Amino acid sequence: MALLSPSRRLRRTPFSDGVEAAGVKAYTVYNHMLLPTVFESVAADYRHLKDHVQVWDVSVERQVELRGPDAGRLMQMLTPRDLRRMLPGQCYYVPIVDETGGMLNDPVCLKLAEDRWWISIADSDLLYWVKGIANGYRLDVLVDEPDISPLAVQGPKAEDLLVRVFGERIRDIRFFRFDWFDFEGREMAIARSGYSKQGGFEIYVEGGDIGMPLWNSLFAVGEDLNVRAGCPNLIERIEGGLLSYGNDMTDDNTPHECGLGRFCDTQTAIGCIGRDALLRVAKEGPVQQLQPIEIAGPPVPPCDRYWQLWASGKKVGKVTSAAWSPDFDVNVAIGMVRMTHWDPGTDLEVETPDGMRPALVREQFWI
Amino acid sequence: MALLSPSRRLRRTPFSDGVEAAGVKAYTVYNHMLLPTVFESVAADYRHLKDHVQVWDVSVERQVELRGPDAGRLMQMLTPRDLRRMLPGQCYYVPIVDETGGMLNDPVCLKLAEDRWWISIADSDLLYWVKGIANGYRLDVLVDEPDISPLAVQGPKAEDLLVRVFGERIRDIRFFRFDWFDFEGREMAIARSGYSKQGGFEIYVEGGDIGMPLWNSLFAVGEDLNVRAGCPNLIERIEGGLLSYGNDMTDDNTPHECGLGRFCDTQTAIGCIGRDALLRVAKEGPVQQLQPIEIAGPPVPPCDRYWQLWASGKKVGKVTSAAWSPDFDVNVAIGMVRMTHWDPGTDLEVETPDGMRPALVREQFWI
Repeated sequence: MALLSPSRRLRRTPFSDGVEAAGVKAYTVYNHMLLPTVFESVAADYRHLKDHVQVWDVSVERQVELRGPDAGRLMQMLTPRDLRRMLPGQCYYVPIVDETGGMLNDPVCLKLAEDRWWISIADSDLLYWVKGIANGYRLDVLVDEPDISPLAVQGPKAEDLLVRVFGERIRDIRFFRFDWFDFEGREMAIARSGYSKQGGFEIYVEGGDIGMPLWNSLFAVGEDLNVRAGCPNLIERIEGGLLSYGNDMTDDNTPHECGLGRFCDTQTAIGCIGRDALLRVAKEGPVQQLQPIEIAGPPVPPCDRYWQLWASGKKVGKVTSAAWSPDFDVNVAIGMVRMTHWDPGTDLEVETPDGMRPALVREQFWI
Repeated sequence: MALLSPSRRLRRTPFSDGVEAAGVKAYTVYNHMLLPTVFESVAADYRHLKDHVQVWDVSVERQVELRGPDAGRLMQMLTPRDLRRMLPGQCYYVPIVDETGGMLNDPVCLKLAEDRWWISIADSDLLYWVKGIANGYRLDVLVDEPDISPLAVQGPKAEDLLVRVFGERIRDIRFFRFDWFDFEGREMAIARSGYSKQGGFEIYVEGGDIGMPLWNSLFAVGEDLNVRAGCPNLIERIEGGLLSYGNDMTDDNTPHECGLGRFCDTQTAIGCIGRDALLRVAKEGPVQQLQPIEIAGPPVPPCDRYWQLWASGKKVGKVTSAAWSPDFDVNVAIGMVRMTHWDPGTDLEVETPDGMRPALVREQFWI
């Protein structure tokens, strides 16, 4: 692995001291901020995540806050998902598209009130798009990045751990809902959500100063639960079909190409900037789509660029993410595949740095 | 230094193969892309840059292209610098501001024609802001990121090296001007510009496929000039007072706070989105400003977060970038200092990870 030069531009987080003390071994950079990627090893972290509970510094999920009379209107302009029935206390996964229907980000948004929303963003400066739109359309809304740093608690014992810090009411939070909790006199939104399929929560920590006290509390009360510092896990997220903006998709792709058509209510999402473009896509369907791909052979090297997918000597797609899965004893992968070759069971070949290997389009992810 | 996990999201460049073959030792991430930071060592790279010539993979300077009847109008909306007299073939350093006058980026823009511009961006997704504004104001303009990867050639022997590949006409390019040159049948804009004070050029390489042929040509003809792979050098850029977006400034800062008031023609830059806000700033002046700061003592550790500046027990600013300078035998630094303490010669104290040290506000950078 390459070395990463430190600089103020690669922002630390309120939890960085805890992450370092826990022995972080590697990072990525996400929204101009440090995101841990390895503690013990990707495989050991994976095992632990599936068996116990981990605390993740996901401060990189920066918030774009919309506040004011036009906040709801602006939120609907950003996404083809119909938000009319969304209630305060709900979280929605929302593709964000430009006027051509190209994906600009794939965040989760939280509705705090009719006139107040948070967008918990993936790796692109969505703030710039939202500010530009708000300004250009002269909307009556404030748009900024508040001092909020999400801390995720993930794994089968996540609920038990959080109950010890925040009380039994944690158990009442339904999936993709959030509620407000007190920690040392500070209000925090806690949602049942997170970037794993192992269950868990995301705590929206407002104010960097309370970060390490909360971090330390979680570790102090969780020793018998075998709580550890962790991070989004490459293997687990591919197994679960959790997409990564910048890896699996870019602004070249429509939500439909990403398999996110079910989040596009193109008929009813009136006001969405990309609606015209997506109406056509919804009607005709995409010509390529992200699919679960199984790659044969021993563990693949890191996927740091597109790996071409071939069939009968023709280019039919590309692998965008891949990793060896200990639990499924195979290389799990995500790939963008042309419609001629995307049917489950289709045999392909993938051009990895180690050479050509057989690959297979699967019916579903490893869940 | 920490390790950087590879992923497709941290984009490789057309020159990555060359960079790796040249023995790159560390990277940073910039505009979701890999930017080399160290080859031999930061100090050895610095020495070589000042004495010879280096080829820099600065593909991370992604281009935002504006094309169409409203391209010029849009460009002026983005910046408080008056662009009316700018001619095709010129480069301008342009602060880009939002409606509050906050800095969104500090790129160089190139005017290719009345209806065609490139913005060669620093580390933020400026494309999103520009697309948002173009869409919101319903401008008649295409905005996108073309497949252009700048390659910089920097150092005292840069001109001699480029002449060998592109011919004597290279010598006619004036500072912050560009012209068109042929390489293997491909047109490339070459500007006399770059992120160092050692002189040099930036080649706007269009089409990733021609990247390595050009890279290899430069090394093939430059052996006797002692050409090496290099990268923007932390020490040299601080000595020269070259600012870094994300390190020395963010969207919290106005251009005036960054000492960029001379690039703000607030009276005449009609149409600039941040003009109203900046008119007030221009009239009253900023209350804090970036200054050259000398830090006493042995070489400072890497500056990966703000270092508080103190005077008489009061917080009066913060250091944003710092490095040991072999040539000036002192720690060179950039800091945002409040007006009460920004006069040259003012003694301050700076809180480094190693403890408090004396610091001094200087009259000018080390040039």
